[in-house]
Amino acid sequence: MVVGKAVQRVDGVAKVTGKARYTDDFTMPGMRVAKYLRSTISHGRVTFIDTSQAKALPGVDGVFTFQDVPKRIYATAGHPFSLDPHHMDVADRYLLTDHVRYMGDEIAIVVAVNDLVATKALSLIDVEYESYQPLVEVSDILSKDAVEIHKGSGNIVKSHSFVAGGDLDAVKEECDRLIKGRYKTQIVQHCHLENHTAYAYMDDLDRIVIVSSTQIPHIARRIVGEALEMDVGFIRVIKPAIGGGFGNKQDVILEPMVAFLTKKLDGIPVRLKLDREEGMIGTRVRHPFDVKVQVGLDREGTVKLIDFDALSITGAYASHGHSIVSAGAAKTHYMYPRAVYSCKTKTIYSNIPAAGAMRAYGSPQMTFAIECAMEEAARSFGMDSVEFRLKNGARAGDKSQITKKPIMTCGLLDSIYKGKELINWDKKRAAWSAEQTGQVRNGLGVAIFSYGSGTYPVCVEPASARLILNQDGSAHLQVGATEIGQGSDTALAQMAAETLGFTFEKIHVVSAQDTDVTPFDTGSYASRQTYVTGQAVMRTAEQLKTKILAHASVITGLDSELITIVGDDIVIAEDPKIAVLSVRDVAIDAYYNKERGGQITAEATYKVRNNPHVFGCTFVDITVDIPLCRVKINEIYNVHDSGIIINPVTAEGQVHGGMAMGIGAALFEELMVDPDSGKIYNNNLLDYKVPTIMDIPDLGAAFIETNEPTHPYGSKSLGEPPIISQAPAIRNAILDATGVAINELPMSPKTIFKYFKNAGLI
Amino acid sequence: MVVGKAVQRVDGVAKVTGKARYTDDFTMPGMRVAKYLRSTISHGRVTFIDTSQAKALPGVDGVFTFQDVPKRIYATAGHPFSLDPHHMDVADRYLLTDHVRYMGDEIAIVVAVNDLVATKALSLIDVEYESYQPLVEVSDILSKDAVEIHKGSGNIVKSHSFVAGGDLDAVKEECDRLIKGRYKTQIVQHCHLENHTAYAYMDDLDRIVIVSSTQIPHIARRIVGEALEMDVGFIRVIKPAIGGGFGNKQDVILEPMVAFLTKKLDGIPVRLKLDREEGMIGTRVRHPFDVKVQVGLDREGTVKLIDFDALSITGAYASHGHSIVSAGAAKTHYMYPRAVYSCKTKTIYSNIPAAGAMRAYGSPQMTFAIECAMEEAARSFGMDSVEFRLKNGARAGDKSQITKKPIMTCGLLDSIYKGKELINWDKKRAAWSAEQTGQVRNGLGVAIFSYGSGTYPVCVEPASARLILNQDGSAHLQVGATEIGQGSDTALAQMAAETLGFTFEKIHVVSAQDTDVTPFDTGSYASRQTYVTGQAVMRTAEQLKTKILAHASVITGLDSELITIVGDDIVIAEDPKIAVLSVRDVAIDAYYNKERGGQITAEATYKVRNNPHVFGCTFVDITVDIPLCRVKINEIYNVHDSGIIINPVTAEGQVHGGMAMGIGAALFEELMVDPDSGKIYNNNLLDYKVPTIMDIPDLGAAFIETNEPTHPYGSKSLGEPPIISQAPAIRNAILDATGVAINELPMSPKTIFKYFKNAGLI
Repeated sequence: MVVGKAVQRVDGVAKVTGKARYTDDFTMPGMRVAKYLRSTISHGRVTFIDTSQAKALPGVDGVFTFQDVPKRIYATAGHPFSLDPHHMDVADRYLLTDHVRYMGDEIAIVVAVNDLVATKALSLIDVEYESYQPLVEVSDILSKDAVEIHKGSGNIVKSHSFVAGGDLDAVKEECDRLIKGRYKTQIVQHCHLENHTAYAYMDDLDRIVIVSSTQIPHIARRIVGEALEMDVGFIRVIKPAIGGGFGNKQDVILEPMVAFLTKKLDGIPVRLKLDREEGMIGTRVRHPFDVKVQVGLDREGTVKLIDFDALSITGAYASHGHSIVSAGAAKTHYMYPRAVYSCKTKTIYSNIPAAGAMRAYGSPQMTFAIECAMEEAARSFGMDSVEFRLKNGARAGDKSQITKKPIMTCGLLDSIYKGKELINWDKKRAAWSAEQTGQVRNGLGVAIFSYGSGTYPVCVEPASARLILNQDGSAHLQVGATEIGQGSDTALAQMAAETLGFTFEKIHVVSAQDTDVTPFDTGSYASRQTYVTGQAVMRTAEQLKTKILAHASVITGLDSELITIVGDDIVIAEDPKIAVLSVRDVAIDAYYNKERGGQITAEATYKVRNNPHVFGCTFVDITVDIPLCRVKINEIYNVHDSGIIINPVTAEGQVHGGMAMGIGAALFEELMVDPDSGKIYNNNLLDYKVPTIMDIPDLGAAFIETNEPTHPYGSKSLGEPPIISQAPAIRNAILDATGVAINELPMSPKTIFKYFKNAGLI
Repeated sequence: MVVGKAVQRVDGVAKVTGKARYTDDFTMPGMRVAKYLRSTISHGRVTFIDTSQAKALPGVDGVFTFQDVPKRIYATAGHPFSLDPHHMDVADRYLLTDHVRYMGDEIAIVVAVNDLVATKALSLIDVEYESYQPLVEVSDILSKDAVEIHKGSGNIVKSHSFVAGGDLDAVKEECDRLIKGRYKTQIVQHCHLENHTAYAYMDDLDRIVIVSSTQIPHIARRIVGEALEMDVGFIRVIKPAIGGGFGNKQDVILEPMVAFLTKKLDGIPVRLKLDREEGMIGTRVRHPFDVKVQVGLDREGTVKLIDFDALSITGAYASHGHSIVSAGAAKTHYMYPRAVYSCKTKTIYSNIPAAGAMRAYGSPQMTFAIECAMEEAARSFGMDSVEFRLKNGARAGDKSQITKKPIMTCGLLDSIYKGKELINWDKKRAAWSAEQTGQVRNGLGVAIFSYGSGTYPVCVEPASARLILNQDGSAHLQVGATEIGQGSDTALAQMAAETLGFTFEKIHVVSAQDTDVTPFDTGSYASRQTYVTGQAVMRTAEQLKTKILAHASVITGLDSELITIVGDDIVIAEDPKIAVLSVRDVAIDAYYNKERGGQITAEATYKVRNNPHVFGCTFVDITVDIPLCRVKINEIYNVHDSGIIINPVTAEGQVHGGMAMGIGAALFEELMVDPDSGKIYNNNLLDYKVPTIMDIPDLGAAFIETNEPTHPYGSKSLGEPPIISQAPAIRNAILDATGVAINELPMSPKTIFKYFKNAGLI
């Protein structure tokens, strides 16, 4: 068995030794650098621009402004193309703009021989603006007199509402108790280690090659085609190793521009690389949400309805904005699926940096709201937080109110039991039962989550893989899904080895994607790799195995049904100890026998049409220092039902990473906006507090393995879920410790101070 | 119809605009350069080497000598691996050697930050030698007391003999006339525009990536594995655009060394690039042959037997030496296949640069001998040279005496008729009939040739291809066969378009090979691409078409038998004017329909088990200036039966190129050896005379199209044959003009002077 084993990551050594090559580790003779001229106002128009001095500077290859770019509006969100016009992404961008929508908007770009010349050239561009009122506050944005950030939008990207599972008013009427709450989440930035970077060149007069740090090379190829009005056959996107993305590279940000520049400059290689300060405003952020929730319960504390009204601020451009709040709403429904579920969502523009996809795609925000409200509900009944969730949480066999399909595997309750045990809930609860009065108080908190495995049925879920049997009996595995640090290459290699009967070491993963040759896959997002791409890999491996056995049958004269592959050998199926020849022998004959055979390869493409949900919870034990307004996490556990775990070590790593990000968003991180100017105060890693190893406690991860029947190895998603439930669990623990409900994020000392002050604690 | 059309080369624009990227057009941060220390003697042993000063030089990363390399002997010839031990290539090389076998042998190598430091470091290495007598003359090489250049060889690489088609002695007995001759050919160098260059790096601790100007990436991968004792799964070879090879890059020369160096140096990128002077001795050359021929004829001038005794000098290392003289003998047999064919060949070592594969692989040398001897034979009967060849040359239906298989297509006689007509043979013959006596005389010459299409049944002939249908209705074509300037990418794209029903512009060729992902093909040599790889491409295209029509059938509800593809549209097969939807529509649905489809790709692997021969001739009209010993070509024509011509323009280009090289070898080119020291006098392009456009007359190319039944488009080989028959045709024309038979090459003024002097002409 290779599946389920803690094999070492296939990219582990390359990455820890520094040998893995990222986009910036490649260069080409004559490569130029490009730098954006970014607006110094957050809302307005460019009324005058003069680039003549910049163009005249020696070493400058070109200066391009909004006047030079294609008059073509395009969408940057990294979704697969949809045949349904209602699911098209929002096209609201030009390559460069004279209509400034956030402070830092791209109005011109310089290409020069090096950074220094490019920077100098930027300083030589004369710009004059006409300024409008920066629209940052919701009331301003939605005011009748507000200037439209995007014409015809009324500053609204999308409004959406649905009720699932019953008649909302009728059920509300029947409820014994209605808990109301309002919860706000902040702007968070992904802060992946590797900034956005891309370069492009042309190999002839027609074809553009783009090398980019992207999660979605095949989608990037399509979007570049749309932005530049080119057929995709002429565009090639290559993705080397990537230093993290977390959704921020599920957006097509630099690729159309580098393609445009090399095309304009006769094919010379042009690199465009954002530094941290630029990237924190010029890429994407997590949407801040303002969610009003009502939870209706009967007299036994059974949740009967959940009713949302959620506002999401997408910033200057739509990006993924149209889909995130509804995706968050739809996915969180699975936590308490027996309740009527009503949801009103609205996403609005604003003169701040654009928000986009970020790990768990709207779910952390919505889950914060739900799990805060549920905590109030439990407490209103005097019920134990855990008992309340055990009573109301999802169970296998529940039906989704939205899709009407049953939940086939659900380890939620077992996860809660496990978490409770790990944190020693009952014992601590008993020990701390007396109301705490000191300056430093202990609290226990819990929150649950649910999440999907891919995007079906909203989007198409295609995946493809190819396997090549090498002469040495090993196989190269090509997948369109991208390894972005999450460990998918390793998990997919394990599945391939398992199905093939190969030892793990015999699988070589072609980790870089190249859209000219890589099997099609929409990329890494929506926690889809193991679940979606895994199914294509498994089918490809089955095909390769069949072909290997067929050729082995030709060589040996044994019927292919009588033989199989175990440990790189062709063995008798009934008695696997009898090896008749090695896979290597089969390969050598297939390649080199003059009269028969040929290279043995396999390729499969597959569209997944299921979307099983994963479930789990966070349990946390904290100490609150009231005077210092600080929270110290003593113990924290995430328990996950992600189906069968393909690799326990990489799975644990994935959970640890998510938990650390979740704690960061709960306690520290916030991109801060000046409400008057739209300026971001802290777009750098000194002033924006990403937690370091010093800020993160020991992290506990546990798994409840269910065997998901729609996946060949029983697996479900694991990439994003680990980030979802830390904030509400910590918030509920603070409530537990202090009686104070903190309903906005981050729960930094500043916020906590405000709440404690209001509550009279200080 | 796309096949048969003179479409523009797919790589044409990229190459003429300088946008095509060759191995040296890529670089990597931190890339180092490597330089060989080459021996200053041609035969002996290194008795002392001290690299300490070189190693101590700042900027030097490493110095490696024969002491540091794997103690593993390997073969460099670029053949596919053979399952038959008798067909294994000769393993006689180490990566570096202390046993010096030619002046320039590689005994150490330096890796440094740049060329300057590397060169300086080389000068700091102390070497002392023990010198042996340089073995250059055949008598010395084969002398009983000669030192063995390779231990145990007796200085013989291989001896081989066969008689085909009858009892030699009996037939010789029956012959009316026996013509004897002895013919010598010179050492020629390929002189491809782009010198040998390669670099390598490692992406982790195990895997080596090699970028190289090679004709045979998949074979190079295997040989690097053999040289370094690594499994091929850990080796990746990438071939960018290549500036010519002509067989010299069908040898694995630099790849094992760059792989070794990067492995030794912790994976840093190391480039090894030979300059012209180094390349002309340090790569490969064409074997000089010394051929004794007897042609037996009956009284009507019918050729009854051809009996060879051919000696080939392979130089310091075997490379392809073991196979070239026998390949040349076997292939030329097809010219006069009704004769008994007897052949004794011997290939010997010598202390001069190693010979290897070069365009037409032994056939030019053997054909020179045969077609000189045939001219003597014709003249001995007073027969017209053309009539003699029409009488004796191959015809369809003749059987090969070697394979016993019939020749299915043979346009030899039609080629001769065509050439005769083009050169106006009869009219000129009549006009010049009187014996010429002046200082400047005219002559007409003819020579015929035959050549194979690939290497079957000597070697395995595998080819593979893959096609990906893009979203825009175009397709990417991947082949393992390498475009090396011969136009194979274009011809293969034409065949793909033809079979698919696509317009030519819809085929995008992935021109670079990458052994990690490129379908397996042994590469470009033996004139095999159009014939061998074409068959894989055709099968792949048929498969893709079937899949496209199947999905179109799902969309339209029309049975897939009722529809086909014409001009990028799905049309009703019976009435192709009725388009039901476009291929693009099919692609979009296949990619993006949520409920059906998937990426449409196809891959086929195929082993060819035929080897049809091509035929043709050179006709030449010359003027000989006797006092100046110079030959002026007035008119020259090559006529080819290469089956159906896929692209008339690229085919003509191929013939022109071959003719120019053939004329160069006939009249100008020779790598000159000092017989005492083994030193090469003229390893540079000033002293080695490659003909330029000033030296080459207008070249005429014509085609006799036969329809080869073993190829889907009736095609046969065309890459190498154009170089074969110029030298004998010109030699026969000189004989015609002056009565002097020049039996050695090149027929430079120096050679001609010797012959004219002997003949008393001057």
